[in-house]
Amino acid sequence: MLIPRLIERKRDGLALTGDEWRMLVRAYVAGQVPDYQMSALAMAVVWRGLESGELAALTEAMLRSGASLDFGDWTTPRVDKHSIGGVGDKTSLLLAPMAACCGVAVPMISGRGLGHTGGTLDKLEAIPGFNTRLSLGEAIAQVKQLGLAMLGQTPEICPADRKLYALRDVTGTVESIPLISASIMSKKLAEGLTGLVLDVKTGSGAFISDPAQSQVLAKTMIGIGEANGCRTVALITAMDRPLGVACGNALEVIEALEGLHGRGPADLMEVTYALAVEMLLVAGLDTDRAAALQRLEETVSSGKALQLFARMIEAQGGDPRIVSDYSLLPKAPVTMEYRAVLDGVVSEVPPRKIGHAIIALGGGRSKTEDSIDPAVGLVISAKPGQRVRRGDVLAVIHARTQAGAERAREALDEAIVLGQSARPLPLISHRITAGGVETL
Amino acid sequence: MLIPRLIERKRDGLALTGDEWRMLVRAYVAGQVPDYQMSALAMAVVWRGLESGELAALTEAMLRSGASLDFGDWTTPRVDKHSIGGVGDKTSLLLAPMAACCGVAVPMISGRGLGHTGGTLDKLEAIPGFNTRLSLGEAIAQVKQLGLAMLGQTPEICPADRKLYALRDVTGTVESIPLISASIMSKKLAEGLTGLVLDVKTGSGAFISDPAQSQVLAKTMIGIGEANGCRTVALITAMDRPLGVACGNALEVIEALEGLHGRGPADLMEVTYALAVEMLLVAGLDTDRAAALQRLEETVSSGKALQLFARMIEAQGGDPRIVSDYSLLPKAPVTMEYRAVLDGVVSEVPPRKIGHAIIALGGGRSKTEDSIDPAVGLVISAKPGQRVRRGDVLAVIHARTQAGAERAREALDEAIVLGQSARPLPLISHRITAGGVETL
Repeated sequence: MLIPRLIERKRDGLALTGDEWRMLVRAYVAGQVPDYQMSALAMAVVWRGLESGELAALTEAMLRSGASLDFGDWTTPRVDKHSIGGVGDKTSLLLAPMAACCGVAVPMISGRGLGHTGGTLDKLEAIPGFNTRLSLGEAIAQVKQLGLAMLGQTPEICPADRKLYALRDVTGTVESIPLISASIMSKKLAEGLTGLVLDVKTGSGAFISDPAQSQVLAKTMIGIGEANGCRTVALITAMDRPLGVACGNALEVIEALEGLHGRGPADLMEVTYALAVEMLLVAGLDTDRAAALQRLEETVSSGKALQLFARMIEAQGGDPRIVSDYSLLPKAPVTMEYRAVLDGVVSEVPPRKIGHAIIALGGGRSKTEDSIDPAVGLVISAKPGQRVRRGDVLAVIHARTQAGAERAREALDEAIVLGQSARPLPLISHRITAGGVETL
Repeated sequence: MLIPRLIERKRDGLALTGDEWRMLVRAYVAGQVPDYQMSALAMAVVWRGLESGELAALTEAMLRSGASLDFGDWTTPRVDKHSIGGVGDKTSLLLAPMAACCGVAVPMISGRGLGHTGGTLDKLEAIPGFNTRLSLGEAIAQVKQLGLAMLGQTPEICPADRKLYALRDVTGTVESIPLISASIMSKKLAEGLTGLVLDVKTGSGAFISDPAQSQVLAKTMIGIGEANGCRTVALITAMDRPLGVACGNALEVIEALEGLHGRGPADLMEVTYALAVEMLLVAGLDTDRAAALQRLEETVSSGKALQLFARMIEAQGGDPRIVSDYSLLPKAPVTMEYRAVLDGVVSEVPPRKIGHAIIALGGGRSKTEDSIDPAVGLVISAKPGQRVRRGDVLAVIHARTQAGAERAREALDEAIVLGQSARPLPLISHRITAGGVETL
């Protein structure tokens, strides 16, 4: 296999065979294909794309480069939910225990926040003592026992993806729907899933802001999932404003717990229930949407989902009392109200600016290696379309220092836009399956 | 300067600034930009191309990465001719002494053959003792004294181009008109030229076979030359069949000498004179085409061009007696006539197949590191359009061994195509300057 000839074929818009992709990935991980050839190939893929057969083979090769969660002949359906980045998105913390209470096993391997987006691992680590570094064996045992586990990426999973992603990150080759899809799906398939629900964000704060491209991304990932025997469905949800009101790790844990107590913000609960219903459907545990929703609502009203979340926290070394006593969570010493300076309508709450305000507070990362302050953040009650009067509280800043609070206040001057009107995107706009696109 | 941001801009079809290209090239040569970033950028350039300002800056940066022939305040016009690859093309050996006799200084830095194409250095080295490894100082002194020197690339010239070309060669990024143009022109500008004549081959045996693309290549190189103060003109000439009749290094030297004796094949002489006329014109030594041609013809009829060639051979350590005594040149021990097997018209003599027949004889290179046999080759009297009868000699094979001759004979079965008719390209089809394209 002459690598330059393969690069030239992709450069000229032709497809490589599945075997060629599998050999390429193996040779790359083994150090037999140098980075300078792989980066040129990656750029050719950004240019020319990948056909569905190439995508399935590339994803499979990255998956097989490492270990997977192997549930053997365990017949319980295993379903995860994966979101393509967002601000204020704490749905995972709610829907995992809810779905697990309904009989879905949820082996959830999550990532950290970067740039304006948050990450589930960071939220979990706001819980004192919570250990996200489970081994694959520990994760399997806990999922079999409790029905769910939440952990971080382990070094054994998809080493090929890790090596390739690090290269793409410094060679301008991240922005490729096929490469993004293969990267995400290889890691999700390593969870040993029978089904997957994708939350593909759209709008200004999404990784992909163009709605048409969001659908392409969803369809691409669904194609990979289905080609690898994992039933996959996607919802397109709005990320032109934060989801829920809390942004910042400990604050989001509190909001998630409020949701499990039955007191969550309407938008957060609507998206959470919609995704959880899809989880039950792809698990094959329900065929009726209304019945699935009712079962999920009962996990909240009965307190069972909250109890299961507490048991998971305990199993992973955290303090389960936090589910009712929020004072055990990290708390920022400085709070400051942010008020409207004029009468008007909240026209925009751009998530990127909110995310950057949280980085300015110390609660997010601009670089992977940054450490974060779990306590700080913003509780933004202002929602696009809401009419406000001068002096109304739009947000509460939670800061480590007075100076941090002042910086966040200045950032909010740009991140909460008052005007005459608002045109927020529909909260959940489309449902996409292998069969097609349904407008909701 | 964040390299990934520059790669992303080019990937997105935007131009980098001249300063950015200069910094990139400097940092790449210094080892501060890794190969994996440069190869991704090169692929983005293959995709998106380069604007004229980018091209000028990239070429200048590659030129300035090393040393140049510095003729100081010497006022003699310095003009080279550069050909974009071909088979049987020995025009350099003729036109350099002819133009030098007319007062043009010719500092000619040439390359070796690779693949189906021949190289001037290989032809020169068929001359016993001829030294192509002049230092830059020796080359300058000889050009000032004799009016011409023919040498190989030296390590001081364009190290950035050498490093980048080696990378492109293994990353599928050779096929880019802007990158090819910048590579060629950086090396040509390092000759300290006041003018340059390009022989851009077109047709099946050319590096670029599409006539429209040949013109794009010519215009791109002209743009770079003119932007760097070097008057540049191009002729588009046919490479759908070999030029002249001799193919193979010593055989081509003999044919060139025959040309300087006034006995060269018509097609070779026509192209040689056309290119040499352009050299005199860009040198500013003639404004009248007919007068220039007459002066050039006199260098042949008077024997002066042949004498100057002999003096150059002597100055560079070779045996000058070869110009009249061809028996001093390497001679292949086996010769074999190749005859027509039927009556017909020579419809095609595809240069790539001729080039590969020469490689099969040991007279060419498939890899850069291959050594070559200067004596072997083909003398192909058959020209497209020529009517032949069964038994006519179409070519003479010069081989090292009987087995080699047999291999060449088999190769010629495919490389000289007999049929009903022929449609050869016009020998010299266009003249291209900064002002536009003239159809000839």
